[in-house]
Amino acid sequence: MSTKGKKSLVVFSAHSGDFVWRAGGAIATAVAQGHRAHVICLSFGERGESQGLWKQPGMDIETVRAIRREEAQKAADILGASIDFLDLGDYPLSIDDQAFDTIVDLLRAANPDSIMTHVANDPYNRDHNLAHETLLKARMVAQAQGNKTKHPPIGAPQVLMFEPHQSEMCGFVPGLLLDITDVYEKKSAAMNVMSAQSHLIDYYQDLAVRRGVQAVRNGGAKSIRYAEAHQMLFPTVRSAVL
Amino acid sequence: MSTKGKKSLVVFSAHSGDFVWRAGGAIATAVAQGHRAHVICLSFGERGESQGLWKQPGMDIETVRAIRREEAQKAADILGASIDFLDLGDYPLSIDDQAFDTIVDLLRAANPDSIMTHVANDPYNRDHNLAHETLLKARMVAQAQGNKTKHPPIGAPQVLMFEPHQSEMCGFVPGLLLDITDVYEKKSAAMNVMSAQSHLIDYYQDLAVRRGVQAVRNGGAKSIRYAEAHQMLFPTVRSAVL
Amino acid sequence: MSTKGKKSLVVFSAHSGDFVWRAGGAIATAVAQGHRAHVICLSFGERGESQGLWKQPGMDIETVRAIRREEAQKAADILGASIDFLDLGDYPLSIDDQAFDTIVDLLRAANPDSIMTHVANDPYNRDHNLAHETLLKARMVAQAQGNKTKHPPIGAPQVLMFEPHQSEMCGFVPGLLLDITDVYEKKSAAMNVMSAQSHLIDYYQDLAVRRGVQAVRNGGAKSIRYAEAHQMLFPTVRSAVL
Amino acid sequence: MSTKGKKSLVVFSAHSGDFVWRAGGAIATAVAQGHRAHVICLSFGERGESQGLWKQPGMDIETVRAIRREEAQKAADILGASIDFLDLGDYPLSIDDQAFDTIVDLLRAANPDSIMTHVANDPYNRDHNLAHETLLKARMVAQAQGNKTKHPPIGAPQVLMFEPHQSEMCGFVPGLLLDITDVYEKKSAAMNVMSAQSHLIDYYQDLAVRRGVQAVRNGGAKSIRYAEAHQMLFPTVRSAVL
Amino acid sequence: MSTKGKKSLVVFSAHSGDFVWRAGGAIATAVAQGHRAHVICLSFGERGESQGLWKQPGMDIETVRAIRREEAQKAADILGASIDFLDLGDYPLSIDDQAFDTIVDLLRAANPDSIMTHVANDPYNRDHNLAHETLLKARMVAQAQGNKTKHPPIGAPQVLMFEPHQSEMCGFVPGLLLDITDVYEKKSAAMNVMSAQSHLIDYYQDLAVRRGVQAVRNGGAKSIRYAEAHQMLFPTVRSAVL
Amino acid sequence: MSTKGKKSLVVFSAHSGDFVWRAGGAIATAVAQGHRAHVICLSFGERGESQGLWKQPGMDIETVRAIRREEAQKAADILGASIDFLDLGDYPLSIDDQAFDTIVDLLRAANPDSIMTHVANDPYNRDHNLAHETLLKARMVAQAQGNKTKHPPIGAPQVLMFEPHQSEMCGFVPGLLLDITDVYEKKSAAMNVMSAQSHLIDYYQDLAVRRGVQAVRNGGAKSIRYAEAHQMLFPTVRSAVL
Repeated sequence: MSTKGKKSLVVFSAHSGDFVWRAGGAIATAVAQGHRAHVICLSFGERGESQGLWKQPGMDIETVRAIRREEAQKAADILGASIDFLDLGDYPLSIDDQAFDTIVDLLRAANPDSIMTHVANDPYNRDHNLAHETLLKARMVAQAQGNKTKHPPIGAPQVLMFEPHQSEMCGFVPGLLLDITDVYEKKSAAMNVMSAQSHLIDYYQDLAVRRGVQAVRNGGAKSIRYAEAHQMLFPTVRSAVL
Repeated sequence: MSTKGKKSLVVFSAHSGDFVWRAGGAIATAVAQGHRAHVICLSFGERGESQGLWKQPGMDIETVRAIRREEAQKAADILGASIDFLDLGDYPLSIDDQAFDTIVDLLRAANPDSIMTHVANDPYNRDHNLAHETLLKARMVAQAQGNKTKHPPIGAPQVLMFEPHQSEMCGFVPGLLLDITDVYEKKSAAMNVMSAQSHLIDYYQDLAVRRGVQAVRNGGAKSIRYAEAHQMLFPTVRSAVL
Repeated sequence: MSTKGKKSLVVFSAHSGDFVWRAGGAIATAVAQGHRAHVICLSFGERGESQGLWKQPGMDIETVRAIRREEAQKAADILGASIDFLDLGDYPLSIDDQAFDTIVDLLRAANPDSIMTHVANDPYNRDHNLAHETLLKARMVAQAQGNKTKHPPIGAPQVLMFEPHQSEMCGFVPGLLLDITDVYEKKSAAMNVMSAQSHLIDYYQDLAVRRGVQAVRNGGAKSIRYAEAHQMLFPTVRSAVL
Repeated sequence: MSTKGKKSLVVFSAHSGDFVWRAGGAIATAVAQGHRAHVICLSFGERGESQGLWKQPGMDIETVRAIRREEAQKAADILGASIDFLDLGDYPLSIDDQAFDTIVDLLRAANPDSIMTHVANDPYNRDHNLAHETLLKARMVAQAQGNKTKHPPIGAPQVLMFEPHQSEMCGFVPGLLLDITDVYEKKSAAMNVMSAQSHLIDYYQDLAVRRGVQAVRNGGAKSIRYAEAHQMLFPTVRSAVL
Repeated sequence: MSTKGKKSLVVFSAHSGDFVWRAGGAIATAVAQGHRAHVICLSFGERGESQGLWKQPGMDIETVRAIRREEAQKAADILGASIDFLDLGDYPLSIDDQAFDTIVDLLRAANPDSIMTHVANDPYNRDHNLAHETLLKARMVAQAQGNKTKHPPIGAPQVLMFEPHQSEMCGFVPGLLLDITDVYEKKSAAMNVMSAQSHLIDYYQDLAVRRGVQAVRNGGAKSIRYAEAHQMLFPTVRSAVL
Repeated sequence: MSTKGKKSLVVFSAHSGDFVWRAGGAIATAVAQGHRAHVICLSFGERGESQGLWKQPGMDIETVRAIRREEAQKAADILGASIDFLDLGDYPLSIDDQAFDTIVDLLRAANPDSIMTHVANDPYNRDHNLAHETLLKARMVAQAQGNKTKHPPIGAPQVLMFEPHQSEMCGFVPGLLLDITDVYEKKSAAMNVMSAQSHLIDYYQDLAVRRGVQAVRNGGAKSIRYAEAHQMLFPTVRSAVL
């Protein structure tokens, strides 16, 4: 299938739920507008973000991993994204040189126009920090002319940080309130397959409403009902001011 | 003439040169794209920003004011903007209740989609700070439903801060690198009528080149030669992520 | 009635709704625990925060003011606080020397252990900023030994900033997640009398739930269902670390 | 001995002197109030924080290490804390995977209500930074439901950062001024056993007086003579506002 | 007397004690090195910073003002500075247009190479903030070519912020640790005439020792015993890097 | 040759071009004033900062490395600095324990009065961050009394951060505007040998002019034509305030 005229979005997710809760609306929006979206999933969040599963008697880590993988695949399917699972472990996430090279290759293969990932400093969750740092480092390496791999160097994609769980504690300041009203059904469906973290569904539903109210308050159309907040890391280059 | 379909840009400028040096490219861009641009000029910068004129023998403040007004009018004409001169004095700028009400009226009359003004904290120039603060206060008052004037309340226009003279000392961080290559001739022509501050022309020409290089570095088209840096104060509301 | 053993909380509110939405839980908590709570209400928010009323045909400002006063009085009654209305106007709020002296007197009369007010920098609402600044200035003057009024100087009360509408845009970082589960019924009842801003009721109900979830996440009791976020301005002095 | 009703404080200290100079008052306070305090000491500071010993002729590193251990044990005894020595080296401190797992185990074993450690960014001393980062990462791993070790997962203990040597250079802002007047004799005694850093005793004595003055200035009892400054990393959850 | 070759230091002090506690060492240093130092004293601190006097029976404000003036004059004499008293009131300090013009004139008359004043944001003391803001505004006006007064425009003097009482709460970060060992006797003598604030003498003596220790730690000569901390507001221009 | 009376400057450069573009003026200034300058060059920037070379057909990494080394050596010669090449790789730079020990040794050998390096946080280039972090860690280790190597421990050299490519995005704030007018010819000549990055020559020439204009604006001599901006990390210790 040709990818001509399509743009490319990469979502770089520490655990297999993050891309759903935090960037599901952005993914569905990109796909609905004819673009490609690809998720790089560093771990399954099997140790630290699967409370719902660990409460079941006799649960073991392989089963958790398998269920988390299946759920994340389903969520990606619903949102319309392709997904790579790197299975690098969680709590703590660990990224060795080989995994790093794989990430650089995946970035070059996807050749993204924009990348979404975690904030730089989440005091609650250092896996998020490592994902952020790794993404910036991999982006730099993927740009290097002298780094010869099968894919050519990438350009300078914008990096957007999606919203962390407790925004103010992470220095997160919304720079983009993305109207996800039209695709919200898809995000909602994707959230509903994440059984291991079902306690988060209402929380992120309420958050979408809250960001939607703020989008209207910040000049958005009155029809906006759901929004997602993101923060730009680099300056945006545009040729229009209005 | 109908204004149907046109958007509206207001530039809120402490002194009569600021809108040229710092937002001339944005104004020319908006106009070139079929929108309206209006400058609210709080003072002529007659005492503090007219060094070139004061070096002339026998100069007096009325003459400075007249020349500065004429030059600013010419610059606005070149850029394609309408302009209001409030003549509120400079070094220090002073804004009383009546002037404030006038500003609120002008904002409502222009009904802007975006407003450009100074940064919040310029240690070199407190007139800039006062302009920033006044704009935010006037924007709030212009929004109030219960404030009945001849124009209806405005919505929630974005506020962009244009680049101050010494960016890092003012906490300025570029959020938008605006490609002004196509309209640069107009900005250049407008700068060249500012005879009282002719020492700034090269400085701002070089700055446009510098920001242009950075625009390319941040993913902009290779063809960008000139850019202007601006910083968004509020989150942007959009329905696309790519 | 004796006030022996009671502590005193002052809430310094720019508009007549702020103390309800942002500090209603704190007020009800203080009162439920046997302390005094007093609200200093600077304006009725009659021009800028009474949208619900201005949509009614034939509405005029005196009627808005009267309704807002009545509603705020009812809300204060429900929460158990006394309240002073200074009627200083809104959008913009304006505080002259006489009003300032009145505020100093009210602070000395209340002799607060803690004061709640707005954040320092709300880009959406400069009345909030003025309230913050005025409170800090009045606190300082109320402390001065050489400022002789009928009430003696106050000590050094903590200042807490309650949560603004768009927290991240105001530099707000929660320092205290106050469990308001036991008094939430009172806060809810107080919010429900604010007819001019009824669009906010769901928003602040959801916020209370959200802050409640976060309170549990930050080590609070599992039974917490509602919380209010506040930020301390000064260091807290304590004699226990656990 | 039963630990029923007791709370638990963990102090996570890069070098064997840090817990004495920076948190000695907090430890003695916790113990005096019937709680448990446990110090995790990552290194002896044998290379970088034992100037007094290295000035003695013929000194070698094993002797320094032994003396530092003995002194730290004495100081912990005086303060009433238990202590673990991990002997991970200093200047630079180095924490491998095994040491990290040990730290996670120790955290789970202690099951702390609060943890004290270094600031995030001390430009003078990167061992302090590594201790901070390691603590946050270990706290996260110790919380993970799916991380099965002999001790159950911990909750969400508050993290307090104790005062670094040059506070302003480290972004340290006091959030808690802890009155240590009643236990100051113990802190003083503990400081006096630290012979390798005896040049610091007066410095930290003066600091305690200085923070004591500030505690009174911030509303503390007039009787406060000594205080220790700490900064909270997470929001505090409470059910009282006064 | 000729001022040839001498440089000029201006200290802009909100209350009559500030220049002594916070900049006494800098003044004495400048004078000892053959330069001129001039203090602009905005108020006597008669209401808010004269606790020692107000405790005396029968004290009235005129007497406080007179004593404070006398003490400040003595302190300035000891330090070797000239001083202007503007008597603008304190708690709150108030600066009208006429006072502002006077300040601009005094700045032009002194033609300073450096100016010392308060930090921008002291949450405890808004008189300090007003002094800071006024100084920056007056500096700007004093620079304006078109502002014709009997003295010519000034250049671009550095502004140093001296240390506030609770440094970390004011965002103060030391940029200069000034060795005042050689002139400390003078600073000490000047502090000792400030009878109305005698409780501060030990506090600032200890602070000088503390900053002295830090000066040595930051590469200063081992002989430094006393230092004063200041923060530069503008970049320093130099022609040597070592 | 005796080094008596000479001071020592170390420039710690991630890639072989950084010390030229960012600190060339500082190096030439130090040398012109009779001091020693030594560059520690961590990598050749062979993969990520040699675009000009990679555009040549048939280029391979060993050739790039050799050319970059030759050019950097020439540039150092022109500036008057000695230079060590550690060849640690770039994009990403990688520093193992052995390389770290080498760096500590080099620091001790040079015994610097000041060190120049990269900013802490450059979102575009994480090699720069690693250089910054490594320098601070190595400085600390080089200071440790108990770390016995052939050179004695160093003191507490100031650390200056040189200007990154996009200053505002890196939190860079100029603290020193260094007049490099007299040595600019040398910096220009050194820049002109960097053939692999020739696109940067105009950019940094313009930057030198821009910083020169700002140096004059900040009180420098009118004769300044070129300047370099640097930021101090630690407080400066001085015995003069004017």
